[in-house]
Amino acid sequence: MTNPLLEKAESFIHQYCQEMNIGPAEKEKRIEEVQNSILTTGTYSHTTSELQFGARAAWRNSNRCIGRLFWNSLQLFDARDALSKEEVKEALFNHIDYATNDGKIRSTVTIFAPREKNKGPIRIFNHQLIRYAGYVKENGEVIGDPHSISFTQFCESLGWRGKGTKYDVLPLVVQLHEGEPFYFNLPPDMIKEVVIKHRSIPEIDELQLKWYAVPIISDMKLEIGGIDYIAAPFNGWYMETEIAARNFADEKRYHELPSVAEKMGLSTKLASNLWKDRAIIELNQAVLDSFKQAGVSMVDHHTAGNQFALFEEKEALEGREVTGDWSWLVPPVSPASSHIFHKRYKNTWNSPNFLYQPSFIK
Amino acid sequence: MTNPLLEKAESFIHQYCQEMNIGPAEKEKRIEEVQNSILTTGTYSHTTSELQFGARAAWRNSNRCIGRLFWNSLQLFDARDALSKEEVKEALFNHIDYATNDGKIRSTVTIFAPREKNKGPIRIFNHQLIRYAGYVKENGEVIGDPHSISFTQFCESLGWRGKGTKYDVLPLVVQLHEGEPFYFNLPPDMIKEVVIKHRSIPEIDELQLKWYAVPIISDMKLEIGGIDYIAAPFNGWYMETEIAARNFADEKRYHELPSVAEKMGLSTKLASNLWKDRAIIELNQAVLDSFKQAGVSMVDHHTAGNQFALFEEKEALEGREVTGDWSWLVPPVSPASSHIFHKRYKNTWNSPNFLYQPSFIK
Ligand code: HEM
Ligand code: HEM
Repeated sequence: MTNPLLEKAESFIHQYCQEMNIGPAEKEKRIEEVQNSILTTGTYSHTTSELQFGARAAWRNSNRCIGRLFWNSLQLFDARDALSKEEVKEALFNHIDYATNDGKIRSTVTIFAPREKNKGPIRIFNHQLIRYAGYVKENGEVIGDPHSISFTQFCESLGWRGKGTKYDVLPLVVQLHEGEPFYFNLPPDMIKEVVIKHRSIPEIDELQLKWYAVPIISDMKLEIGGIDYIAAPFNGWYMETEIAARNFADEKRYHELPSVAEKMGLSTKLASNLWKDRAIIELNQAVLDSFKQAGVSMVDHHTAGNQFALFEEKEALEGREVTGDWSWLVPPVSPASSHIFHKRYKNTWNSPNFLYQPSFIK
Repeated sequence: MTNPLLEKAESFIHQYCQEMNIGPAEKEKRIEEVQNSILTTGTYSHTTSELQFGARAAWRNSNRCIGRLFWNSLQLFDARDALSKEEVKEALFNHIDYATNDGKIRSTVTIFAPREKNKGPIRIFNHQLIRYAGYVKENGEVIGDPHSISFTQFCESLGWRGKGTKYDVLPLVVQLHEGEPFYFNLPPDMIKEVVIKHRSIPEIDELQLKWYAVPIISDMKLEIGGIDYIAAPFNGWYMETEIAARNFADEKRYHELPSVAEKMGLSTKLASNLWKDRAIIELNQAVLDSFKQAGVSMVDHHTAGNQFALFEEKEALEGREVTGDWSWLVPPVSPASSHIFHKRYKNTWNSPNFLYQPSFIK
């Protein structure tokens, strides 16, 4: 009889021992331990070292991530014993503080206790730990980030009230041990934000755009050796296109291109005058410059592509195939200027990995 | 016993009759005719009307083509009886003339006799009917289009000699009835070209870039109802990104971005100054403006995206699913500004279709 968890666990321990140069004796001992634990308790527990390796390998296996060169420097916070409201809150604040590091962003993951028998001891409802609210007004107009509309409504159903600006930071929403979800606000001085200014077009500054410094994805599941860590927020630093060419530009997000074009004095009448393309470039420039000026880590899409090429070389030296999701890896600005555009990648999802999971909002 | 050709033929005739509103009696008669022909001669012949429908449907099924809104206006030249050197030459010249139409480009396909029993009565060796040569100098430097290097060498092996400029139009190379391939030059006044000038940066004009007006793909196979038309050159008009963001920009093509940036007075030291992105936009603008000024049809990538959206709507009304190859459909400039970027397409290849085939160069 096959036990799927047992198979996944063994396969992970093999990989762990191989990459960490752990000898056969120690490996056999650990495998026996894991087997016993699974057969008697139905599950097993990762050592902190396994957890760290697993999280790093999960990043390395993230097919959609162009930032994987640095997979081996991911900082782990092991928060599996944070079970109370206060402990969870502290672990999340600690993540934000440590990762932000006054702008010199550190790639970090905080791992909470895993799901057991379909029960999640800790659920984080936020898409990212720091994110702006989105409100639908009565006339249908949206203030803030349309991506956050349903989550914002959920926060409001819990009693939270935002100021109603374009950039209200949402509260953290957590559920413990199948209890009622609750929210708590982030201390404002914990959240680093960058005001967007353009090097030579001051009119763009009048739009008063800003964005938060650290993207901390908190709604994905981290799967390691068959164990589902459903609460495992992680962050790197931004590539400028994510903010400038998507969050600000997408029609279903902040939709700022017409305003930017207007501030640039471009006519938006003829598509063939490439006003959208020009507005995108200047937004990217402004975001890059503003983050740099503020001392906040950020990578431009050309440098990120080069770093990814280096990652590919290093992986080849290790005899590992780089899997990838081409449609996510190509930058959304001047994609053909990247070597990625001219290659193809196998989109196989290896384990460990970060995966989507159903929303916790009912 | 199944006969694959018979199956494909019948399925095509069904589709043809359905879309062309041909009644059951006529359809049955035609299917019997085709069956008899295949069973007695091993093949069958399309009527001109079937050929036209088949070619149009092949365009409609071209998953990588963003220009498919106009599939139903494709002009067919039926050149299946062009068998001599003179007749083939005349058919190709006629295609170029008719399609070019002094700049008001007409989407056109010329269909030569199909492959029969693995024998190609007519083979066209060119990738496109009009294309620039690429020469490798002794020091390894390339003059012209690197994409054409091996074909240029093949032309030289046949005795052709180019002038050695960046924009030498290659000869047409044809093989008849398994004979020796031969070449003939295109009359220079048959080839419309556009000199690239920028609306406000005259320094860019100093690069003396130019491109030909009409892209006529000539190395793909057109498959209709199981019949392989291995010589079936087709053309539409250009989307500006094909020339500006790929042919001129790719490092493995004309690699002009550094020169354009220099002419724009941009420093190429820091990737984060987005000089590549700016150079790409201005090249796109210059190509768009120059084609417009020269009265040569061209579509910008925004308008092309909108036309594709209309195509999708029209197909939905007809109850047909639009298949597509996302990675080719998204424009290589500001891809996220297109609705295509935010959708996914099924990349199933329906028949009839245009397909790659092995190169004829041995
Ligand atoms: C260090 C700097 C990093 C950079 C510059 C970077 C860059 C990116 C970019 C540009 C994307 C595409 C985002 C989008 O289009 O929405 C992405 C996706 C992703 N990255 Fe990274 N990344 C970094 C760090 C990390 C870290 C530390 C992890 C995990 C430990 C990670 C895991 C992922 C995953 C799982 C995705 C896919 C997200 C999804 O499917 O929604 N990345 N990354
Ligand atoms: C009328 C204007 C047209 C426009 C603006 C247009 C646009 C495009 C573009 C931008 C591509 C991608 C090219 C690349 O990235 O290399 C493409 C590919 C393609 N188009 Fe069109 N197209 C047009 C007409 C046609 C016609 C008339 C046909 C056939 C009858 C056609 C069939 C194809 C095919 C087969 C491909 C894929 C080529 C390959 O795989 O190399 N297109 N088209």
